[in-house]
Amino acid sequence: MQKKVAIYGAGGLTGRELLARLRYHPNVTVTFISSDAYAGQSAEAVFPQLAYYNHATRDLRFSHHTDPLPSDTDFAFLAVPNASSLELLPRLLDARIPVVDLSGSFRLHNQIVWEEHYKLKHTAFEVMSEVVFGLPEIFRDQIKAARAVANPGCYPTGPILALNALGEYRSQIQSVVVDAKSGVSGAGGRTEDSGFSFQGVHENFRAYKILQHQHQPEILEYAATGMQQPITFPLTFTPHLLPLDRGILATIVVHWQGAAPSDLQEKLSAFCKTEPFLRFYETPEEVMLARVQNTNCVDLALRSRDNITVMVSAIDNLMKGAAGQAIQNMNIMTGFTETAALL
Amino acid sequence: MQKKVAIYGAGGLTGRELLARLRYHPNVTVTFISSDAYAGQSAEAVFPQLAYYNHATRDLRFSHHTDPLPSDTDFAFLAVPNASSLELLPRLLDARIPVVDLSGSFRLHNQIVWEEHYKLKHTAFEVMSEVVFGLPEIFRDQIKAARAVANPGCYPTGPILALNALGEYRSQIQSVVVDAKSGVSGAGGRTEDSGFSFQGVHENFRAYKILQHQHQPEILEYAATGMQQPITFPLTFTPHLLPLDRGILATIVVHWQGAAPSDLQEKLSAFCKTEPFLRFYETPEEVMLARVQNTNCVDLALRSRDNITVMVSAIDNLMKGAAGQAIQNMNIMTGFTETAALL
Amino acid sequence: MQKKVAIYGAGGLTGRELLARLRYHPNVTVTFISSDAYAGQSAEAVFPQLAYYNHATRDLRFSHHTDPLPSDTDFAFLAVPNASSLELLPRLLDARIPVVDLSGSFRLHNQIVWEEHYKLKHTAFEVMSEVVFGLPEIFRDQIKAARAVANPGCYPTGPILALNALGEYRSQIQSVVVDAKSGVSGAGGRTEDSGFSFQGVHENFRAYKILQHQHQPEILEYAATGMQQPITFPLTFTPHLLPLDRGILATIVVHWQGAAPSDLQEKLSAFCKTEPFLRFYETPEEVMLARVQNTNCVDLALRSRDNITVMVSAIDNLMKGAAGQAIQNMNIMTGFTETAALL
Amino acid sequence: MQKKVAIYGAGGLTGRELLARLRYHPNVTVTFISSDAYAGQSAEAVFPQLAYYNHATRDLRFSHHTDPLPSDTDFAFLAVPNASSLELLPRLLDARIPVVDLSGSFRLHNQIVWEEHYKLKHTAFEVMSEVVFGLPEIFRDQIKAARAVANPGCYPTGPILALNALGEYRSQIQSVVVDAKSGVSGAGGRTEDSGFSFQGVHENFRAYKILQHQHQPEILEYAATGMQQPITFPLTFTPHLLPLDRGILATIVVHWQGAAPSDLQEKLSAFCKTEPFLRFYETPEEVMLARVQNTNCVDLALRSRDNITVMVSAIDNLMKGAAGQAIQNMNIMTGFTETAALL
Repeated sequence: MQKKVAIYGAGGLTGRELLARLRYHPNVTVTFISSDAYAGQSAEAVFPQLAYYNHATRDLRFSHHTDPLPSDTDFAFLAVPNASSLELLPRLLDARIPVVDLSGSFRLHNQIVWEEHYKLKHTAFEVMSEVVFGLPEIFRDQIKAARAVANPGCYPTGPILALNALGEYRSQIQSVVVDAKSGVSGAGGRTEDSGFSFQGVHENFRAYKILQHQHQPEILEYAATGMQQPITFPLTFTPHLLPLDRGILATIVVHWQGAAPSDLQEKLSAFCKTEPFLRFYETPEEVMLARVQNTNCVDLALRSRDNITVMVSAIDNLMKGAAGQAIQNMNIMTGFTETAALL
Repeated sequence: MQKKVAIYGAGGLTGRELLARLRYHPNVTVTFISSDAYAGQSAEAVFPQLAYYNHATRDLRFSHHTDPLPSDTDFAFLAVPNASSLELLPRLLDARIPVVDLSGSFRLHNQIVWEEHYKLKHTAFEVMSEVVFGLPEIFRDQIKAARAVANPGCYPTGPILALNALGEYRSQIQSVVVDAKSGVSGAGGRTEDSGFSFQGVHENFRAYKILQHQHQPEILEYAATGMQQPITFPLTFTPHLLPLDRGILATIVVHWQGAAPSDLQEKLSAFCKTEPFLRFYETPEEVMLARVQNTNCVDLALRSRDNITVMVSAIDNLMKGAAGQAIQNMNIMTGFTETAALL
Repeated sequence: MQKKVAIYGAGGLTGRELLARLRYHPNVTVTFISSDAYAGQSAEAVFPQLAYYNHATRDLRFSHHTDPLPSDTDFAFLAVPNASSLELLPRLLDARIPVVDLSGSFRLHNQIVWEEHYKLKHTAFEVMSEVVFGLPEIFRDQIKAARAVANPGCYPTGPILALNALGEYRSQIQSVVVDAKSGVSGAGGRTEDSGFSFQGVHENFRAYKILQHQHQPEILEYAATGMQQPITFPLTFTPHLLPLDRGILATIVVHWQGAAPSDLQEKLSAFCKTEPFLRFYETPEEVMLARVQNTNCVDLALRSRDNITVMVSAIDNLMKGAAGQAIQNMNIMTGFTETAALL
Repeated sequence: MQKKVAIYGAGGLTGRELLARLRYHPNVTVTFISSDAYAGQSAEAVFPQLAYYNHATRDLRFSHHTDPLPSDTDFAFLAVPNASSLELLPRLLDARIPVVDLSGSFRLHNQIVWEEHYKLKHTAFEVMSEVVFGLPEIFRDQIKAARAVANPGCYPTGPILALNALGEYRSQIQSVVVDAKSGVSGAGGRTEDSGFSFQGVHENFRAYKILQHQHQPEILEYAATGMQQPITFPLTFTPHLLPLDRGILATIVVHWQGAAPSDLQEKLSAFCKTEPFLRFYETPEEVMLARVQNTNCVDLALRSRDNITVMVSAIDNLMKGAAGQAIQNMNIMTGFTETAALL
């Protein structure tokens, strides 16, 4: 029997991607979508690229965020701004509806750091104990048991997995520099008309939010996970805006206290081998955005020389960086095939 | 009276840029251009974008590299491959014709390192003592006195100047990571048909030559200059290919041994103030390729937090990264106004 | 039971698109792919974007064109050059294997015109009587009964359908001008490395093969179909190369002998309403490439004024312009749901 | 002695281009620039790409449109919206300051047609008798004598010149279709932030204002000029938006009443030969945007077959389509070298 799924905030690019993928999901029917901007319009009218999908959703129309959920809703995605998510997630928990939250509201365990970076008062920090960070490659067992999952940010996903693959060697790191470059749809361009003018992006390139981006503490918190203790090395994260639509590539430079460990290739390869969406490459020049676009994959590779290791990760920011990972989390929480609708 | 100028290898993008700029130079007439690919054709036919420039060059035709120079040649630019430059530069020195070499042949003072990175036997290392590294902001006096100048690489120009602005603080650095991103015309695409297919670059992004690029030792050698001794911190350089035509932006992360010095903004601002082509910005997010394209400027800015400083530099790779800087060097060597043909 | 499908010439962009779509087809398993360039390699290695698809094709490896087909092959696609198709299609007919040919070899019924435009001797014209032109919106019944289908060219698909929607009014036309613009993957860039350099396409635009393109006679032949007689008005077709990856938009200007018929909107709307892949828009400015990319749709609209009608059509050249339409034809020939693997 | 020049509306892309070019003009100093958006800021701050130009303009600051002109102003450019131009041009005529108007206000001699297309009441039609249409290749003598010149629209410039080259053959034309494609800076994107989002333009293409664009009557009026009488053939003009920054290419399909005249190549070649900014090509596929960008050239070519001729024209919309042509007109009006600051 089909599970009935609701998507709050389905009018943005992440919502479009969720709708595009879920129409191929064998166990799911989308029965509620909300968007204050598009309330009343059909999904097909708002997203012509998705027209002619399965008949169950053909006549799907946008509701307001405040409209009541159908009473038989089995699962919910939140693709709304942080302020909305702070209200909606606790309410869904109360209503016993499992939820994946794509906002940044429930990712950090330090309330002061969260409020500093998100420039918002956190009004629901008490539910953090029930929320699991939705990176299946690290937290699959916890996700399986969770009723609420915080979907990772688009930038942290690749670097956290890359650093995690270093395992216990992380204690030998002297410093890490993450230099990440995102297409417009990841760098804040979450709607089609989000203030990035053609003439400001085309044939242009720049860094932004230098030393101030809210994804830096997220990388720091979860890169330490395997070590079960805070990391002690300095980590610098710099995001950049690429003149293209989708994809995030991160170049991760690790300076070691001594020589780089000699078996890092094997470690990374082994880490990828058991995971359905991780792909290992022998040479880091093979990692590129064109290979991951429209997939849920994380492509990973590295090269070492003396006391330096350069790792490269690439994802599609709308897939593994947002909607794809959210569906992967739903699949795990609900007992579906983990790769359903994602291949 | 006009100086008569020769350009070897004028058929590539650097040659085109030299021709484009020199037609506005009040003291210069181009009287010889060579290109084995275009020998016999007119400059106007090969570069329609330059048609209708000054009448002296209107009928300028490409010679072969091996054709004799006009006997009244006053100055020469070499925009040829390294192997050709190794032959031509010593010959020009013998002929007492001052020369700016845009190849990488005469930039490094360590022959072993040079041969390792350029994968070529260096057959003219004895003339290195007569060649000056052509970064006017650091070596202006030496350039003034030089008969042969090695024009810096496109990648090193920004980072060397940024690191140089740190002055004596460089001895407090723990590590430096240079993450550089170049448009196609800088990343090896030196001709219009140089193997970068549209479908391999458009809507794509990747790193290349990781830990293996020949510009890494160049940055290392000249970043140390102000200290008069080799630098002792590890420096990692990673080049990337952007889906755009021109410009190089470098993000330079400095990890300090202790807290970042508090007056770096002032130091950088002061360094820029006295230089005609350096521009200082208060916030590093203002540094972007669109501001430097088609100019000879280096845009620089930085931000510090705790023991980290992030510097950003941007140049046009064909101007300050190649032809523009070469003309600036010629202006200095010849006693012309330093900014002639470059504003 | 799954039908076993072969794809000759699966190493290009069309082959990639066929593979990408057929992995979602409920009734089909791809069991043979050929490519002389990639023979021996796995589909997953050649097309990393497709990795992790269904297990039946996971270990699929490229054969040579000359390798024998598996004896249980049920259906074949030809995505090979014209010369190869002239040999392979007759052989498949002999072997009683139904086939869709994506080359241009069997689209025109005038051998002289074909040989003039394709610059090739046609060595299999005798089988033309068994080949149906694969435009389902016009020839669905014939396709249903056919053993061999010639898939339409990417450029003609939109304009033929637009002109066909004019019905009997075509006899009142004075002249037609088709101005078509294609992304690189349609304009000859059928492989990822097909000679379109980034610097020749990016920030550039041009027309090509003016009054000489092989798709002009194809449009002429099939635009006349509904009238059951050759068209008598002059029709000019001009292709252009857009600086983007996929999609073809055609602007079709019809000059009428008298005033434009007043019910063209209704006619076009009615034509689209009964077809699963045609979409009608009230205003022609709504037709754009972003709406059709990665879909099998043809978007159509028009506006009239005095004795002029401007029609606009848009398709994805790799879908409705090649692989998508080929799968649609296979679905019809084989009795599958027409939209299978195409929504 | 330097002429003192004012630029009203210098804050847009056209203003930037005027400033960029005029800094190289040997006879001109810009002494007044206005922009209500940037009033008070320096030209260098608003346009970093122009920094370091000649010292006279280095400290140039934007005034308000309503600020008084310096009393010694010798010449004015209007790069303002139509409503402002309707007020400013008559005032400048009164003040006996020669003016080139880059708006569309004074281009059409039929007030009803003007008001229909510009959706504005024309409040200064009485001065039309003093305004000359600024296309030097056709109206050079009149421009020489004029005190006010209406600079042509960006779209009409190429097609008018192409049709004009047909000379007396125009009376044998049956119909003309002009299909024009513009980069963002020409298609309404006259400021850097003019509502064209990156995601709406990149990897997209569409037509706009079909049968409704204000440049259609402009082409019609001036294409007839050489014939000294209104043209009698239908002419359709369709503008499109390209995913690139600058340049307009127009494909002009002429259907003749009989066979195409046989000497059109010679006629076009002869027309171009005497003009400093027209360039003739033997094959129309050589006409492309990359060749005209950043030049003041109009590239032209044609091919005929039977009773059809296809002409192709290309210009840089900010140069020959706006600022470059305006400077050319000023040079003619003032007696400077016609190509000054434009090579």
